[in-house]
Amino acid sequence: EQIEILNQYSHRRYNPLLDEWVLVAPHRTKRPWQGSQDDEEEEIGVDYDESCFLCPGNSRSSKEINPNYEDTFVFYNDFPALMENAEIHSFREDPLFQGETVRGTGKVICYSPSHSLTLPELPIESIEKLINSWVNELDELSKSYKWVQVFENKGQMMGCSQPHPHGQIWASEFIPTQINKKDRSQREFFNKYKKNLLLDYVTKELELKERIVHENEHWVVLIPYWAAWPFETMVLPKSHIPQMSYMNLEQRKCLASILKKLTVSYDNLFNCSFPYSMGWHFAPFVDTINHLEYWQLHATFLPPLLRSKSIRKFMVGYELLCEQGRDITPEVAAEYLRNTSVNHYKARK
Amino acid sequence: EQIEILNQYSHRRYNPLLDEWVLVAPHRTKRPWQGSQDDEEEEIGVDYDESCFLCPGNSRSSKEINPNYEDTFVFYNDFPALMENAEIHSFREDPLFQGETVRGTGKVICYSPSHSLTLPELPIESIEKLINSWVNELDELSKSYKWVQVFENKGQMMGCSQPHPHGQIWASEFIPTQINKKDRSQREFFNKYKKNLLLDYVTKELELKERIVHENEHWVVLIPYWAAWPFETMVLPKSHIPQMSYMNLEQRKCLASILKKLTVSYDNLFNCSFPYSMGWHFAPFVDTINHLEYWQLHATFLPPLLRSKSIRKFMVGYELLCEQGRDITPEVAAEYLRNTSVNHYKARK
Ligand SMILES: O=P(O)(O)O[C@H]1O[C@H](CO)[C@@H](O)[C@H](O)[C@H]1O
Ligand SMILES: O=P(O)(O)O[C@H]1O[C@H](CO)[C@@H](O)[C@H](O)[C@H]1O
Repeated sequence: EQIEILNQYSHRRYNPLLDEWVLVAPHRTKRPWQGSQDDEEEEIGVDYDESCFLCPGNSRSSKEINPNYEDTFVFYNDFPALMENAEIHSFREDPLFQGETVRGTGKVICYSPSHSLTLPELPIESIEKLINSWVNELDELSKSYKWVQVFENKGQMMGCSQPHPHGQIWASEFIPTQINKKDRSQREFFNKYKKNLLLDYVTKELELKERIVHENEHWVVLIPYWAAWPFETMVLPKSHIPQMSYMNLEQRKCLASILKKLTVSYDNLFNCSFPYSMGWHFAPFVDTINHLEYWQLHATFLPPLLRSKSIRKFMVGYELLCEQGRDITPEVAAEYLRNTSVNHYKARK
Repeated sequence: EQIEILNQYSHRRYNPLLDEWVLVAPHRTKRPWQGSQDDEEEEIGVDYDESCFLCPGNSRSSKEINPNYEDTFVFYNDFPALMENAEIHSFREDPLFQGETVRGTGKVICYSPSHSLTLPELPIESIEKLINSWVNELDELSKSYKWVQVFENKGQMMGCSQPHPHGQIWASEFIPTQINKKDRSQREFFNKYKKNLLLDYVTKELELKERIVHENEHWVVLIPYWAAWPFETMVLPKSHIPQMSYMNLEQRKCLASILKKLTVSYDNLFNCSFPYSMGWHFAPFVDTINHLEYWQLHATFLPPLLRSKSIRKFMVGYELLCEQGRDITPEVAAEYLRNTSVNHYKARK
């Protein structure tokens, strides 16, 4: 009934993780459009490209030569945003001119030797190997860094600078703005209600059944009540998992399967290789009281497409200056995604 | 000296208005790029287009007919995100499912009858008329609404859905997330230091001279110390002006002139019609103690281009999931902008 009312009128929803509101204007997709229709994403069909910096056996821009790798392949980013050898200086005298130099590192994970197989097209075993790479890299980097961001920019629309399917890992000695916000929100919720915020949330969503996209024994994919991007989803465990290394074998296998299911749904929505940015959040590698208890591991997918493979949502003007906004409701978006075919559109041709 | 150190290493800078950090990686522009190079923005040369919904005398999608207007022309948006006749409901029982319906309205301001003249190409008198329209609309809408966002999305890259040069006004009964944050920051600063945050800031910037782009008797254009977008600028008054209606005639004239100067610099940077989202922030229309004293009027320009008219900065992955980031320093960006020609590139052909 709440949802019925909200679907009739423009409204705002509260994001309890970031302490921000999101404007929802359900009727806005009807407006005429004389603006940009993005070009179709180029569909790359080849297994190997000799001009690719990431394919096995090729040389990168650093002149290093990639091994003839057969599974996932991880290497240090040749142009990392964060560097290990920075001198540390901090400028805090003037509240309006505060700055600090930072240390960190960047890595690239090629998903497989294939120049064309994206996440939804990979066999389940390869996705399991990718998950294991994430866990191993996190184990290693958590020894030196407080925060490690695992993410993927997929598609040219999302600024992906190399077409070979890959993800990235940026590790830093500082905890970034958004992780700090999520740390505070989950901590405050835990102190107030004696519950893990996201575990409480997923339990309620499983009862409501309004925003669920996929579900299996250990995981749920849903469009959060407060989602800003049109088909934004969260991947949430059904039990308490504060960091990736806490996943057991069964949970990893189930995760591979639901990640494949979600990304196949994305591709089938508009019959195209669906662009997105995705990344993992979990308890940072610090010792704050109770922090493993109040943190819950989750992935977020932020895809820009709105109505077709060439019509996207622009997060501009009002969204950049006032507050994030969306043009279809999370409930409608969840229904669209849920109703896609389970077979990848390329396999159906 | 602080700047010399910061320019050598990746670093973070603090945004005191939004209480967020920004990651700066000065060396990142060197990385190879096999990703998207956006198509050149189409340059529209005609003065009138019969298929345009906004040109004088044409009919809009609502079937209403535009008058044969000669200056700026303001009308109610035919597809507003916010609507006046919404029923008001508020759902706050569950902290994880908070929502509220909202009332508001949307207007469109055509900058001039011309289908092709963008802000930098308009004569100064037309920009003065545009400023007067802003002031008049705000006077009117402030009677019914707490917040009125004046903004422009320029260029297809920024999701502009109608090519006829225009801005927008979205008014609401609620105060959006970002305005709330800026309200708190300026209030806390004022209570702590007995100074207006942005007035203190502009005074210091005028002494440092490191990030100034343009300056005249009443206004300063600068790249803020904490800017996130590559050529992000702020337009700040030199004296205390809490809301648009507090500008005197002289200040309005000077504003028209500096807005033209800034937008000409933008266009001349890469010899193209420079895309951006821009908007005005000022004290909201509420009676909070001292709030006129701690608020300072300012415009923000958020342009996406980074290295040429076809190479943009993508705010994706790490930026969406962790914290905003930039690849050139604000000081270098200010120098580039400052060194552009004062004559618009089209006039030089
Ligand atoms: O209002 P327009 O020009 O149709 O639409 C544009 O500006 C709006 C306000 O920033 C955004 O919500 C839209 O995504 C964008 O395409
Ligand atoms: O690291 P890449 O793929 O070269 O670059 C891409 O991802 C980065 C991290 O999200 C962004 O900072 C860049 O703007 C984007 O183009």
